[in-house]
Amino acid sequence: MTQALRIHEVAPRDGLQNETNVLSTTAKLSLIDALIDAGVRDIEVSSFVHPRWVPQLADASDLIARLPRLADVRYWALIPNQRGFERAVDSGIRHIATVVSASDTHNRKNLNRTRRETIAAQREVVGAAKDEGLAVRCYVSTAFGCPFEGDVPATTVVDVAEALFESGADYVALGDTTGLAHPVQVRSLLAAFEARDISLGKLAVHFHDNRGTALLNAITAYESGIRILDASVAGMGGCPYAPGASGNLATEDLVGVFDAMNVDTGISLESLCEAGAQAELLIGRELPGRLHRYWMGVRERSSESQSA
Amino acid sequence: MTQALRIHEVAPRDGLQNETNVLSTTAKLSLIDALIDAGVRDIEVSSFVHPRWVPQLADASDLIARLPRLADVRYWALIPNQRGFERAVDSGIRHIATVVSASDTHNRKNLNRTRRETIAAQREVVGAAKDEGLAVRCYVSTAFGCPFEGDVPATTVVDVAEALFESGADYVALGDTTGLAHPVQVRSLLAAFEARDISLGKLAVHFHDNRGTALLNAITAYESGIRILDASVAGMGGCPYAPGASGNLATEDLVGVFDAMNVDTGISLESLCEAGAQAELLIGRELPGRLHRYWMGVRERSSESQSA
Repeated sequence: MTQALRIHEVAPRDGLQNETNVLSTTAKLSLIDALIDAGVRDIEVSSFVHPRWVPQLADASDLIARLPRLADVRYWALIPNQRGFERAVDSGIRHIATVVSASDTHNRKNLNRTRRETIAAQREVVGAAKDEGLAVRCYVSTAFGCPFEGDVPATTVVDVAEALFESGADYVALGDTTGLAHPVQVRSLLAAFEARDISLGKLAVHFHDNRGTALLNAITAYESGIRILDASVAGMGGCPYAPGASGNLATEDLVGVFDAMNVDTGISLESLCEAGAQAELLIGRELPGRLHRYWMGVRERSSESQSA
Repeated sequence: MTQALRIHEVAPRDGLQNETNVLSTTAKLSLIDALIDAGVRDIEVSSFVHPRWVPQLADASDLIARLPRLADVRYWALIPNQRGFERAVDSGIRHIATVVSASDTHNRKNLNRTRRETIAAQREVVGAAKDEGLAVRCYVSTAFGCPFEGDVPATTVVDVAEALFESGADYVALGDTTGLAHPVQVRSLLAAFEARDISLGKLAVHFHDNRGTALLNAITAYESGIRILDASVAGMGGCPYAPGASGNLATEDLVGVFDAMNVDTGISLESLCEAGAQAELLIGRELPGRLHRYWMGVRERSSESQSA
């Protein structure tokens, strides 16, 4: 094993938020337990978005109250606005995430205000969060291209990230919202951060798999120096085949490559595949991750041969 | 556009060989036409395996006789043995492919003889092919690992490839038979070839997608200097989710990344997606490629809005 890194698991939040079939809090806790058992140490568990918009995550406070208290596990929650921040503080969660888009058009459509307004609002929220002693990651959406504006200049992405760091953000997560990234761009964007003396250690990458490129981009980012990578067990989150849908990078497939390359993730691949199999049962349909499915097949044949 | 390369399209052979529903020769020709229209210039059209083993490809000679004669398109056929070679010569095809495994156990199971015996037999077949003026590519299966033996030493792979080049092979295609490759290994294997003064220009790579890593490994190989890459439109070929099955790299997803990186493939992505959509109709079920499906969705919505 050669290098350490952090896998930021987003299935309970990003993976579930578009699922119309609302899971029970107990079912979510069971999935989170399985992820912890596998060795995952950063888990984005929910969002304090208004329950009217995302009924799936309406149980955020209740879920957080029932999470196992473990010294080495960091639970994260997304907060879309000031009201969400207040609910987050009340819930007792210690790690929060905010979101802004690098492209103004996407920011207006997603958050109903200009990018400049969102960054100004975040200055207050992030400052207040730091005053409360919380850790803060800020997502920068459309960091690798915008479905409305097309290319997003690297300087714009770095400017937005810099403003967030100046507000007190501990981490900035670069989001490839509609799966437009490619390796040459990943390397050039990260080089633009280094050219501005922003440490890659404070950046995370969050690749969507619309074009089947999420694993390619994630490993490219790792090999360029990124050490925090977002993924969603079993690839939970939207249908990767539907135009415009998200499709997350499957955590087990990412860990599988790191295992093969002898890079320590601290995660047990077999236990993670078991968590992915559980996710698939909860969601009730095939999910796009590869290795959890492979593992389910192996387990099935093994039980067949035992019963034969 | 910065660099040229060759995409070696294997759908009509590798993609079809495990399909039990036998397509008509006319259907295959229609798919090949669509691939040519998209700009594909190397197409592996069939195999001279015994029809008893692969009924799907029993029409190899008839298919080859009916291929459009185009000066800039290279048609390839796989030949598993001496009898297959004779049929290939009779068919008039000008480019052939042979196969041997880097691991002895896989070679015995796949070809029912030792690796040494297969290499000796190929010395005669490749020599005879060169006497006929044919171009020859030799597949080296299990070049990135063997499902029976595990790791396959790079020196073994280079030894086998060197023997094939000495027999007269024009190209050696390194096959990742069960999708075990990873980027660190891809780079170290290619470095082992360079250390033995074997030009990467004479090597092709053929990655299977069992673990969702084919695109990652293909781009890694390209960035290491490989300029011939095998792929199968729409990811035709086995079910990527079934343990042990192949699952090919989808040509359109590979071309999509090259287009994004501004690397010239000579292929029209939109026309290639159309060929992928046609492949899916012929096969009669969803195929794993991403971009042909995306394109089919765009086309469908476009026709809906026109009819509305």
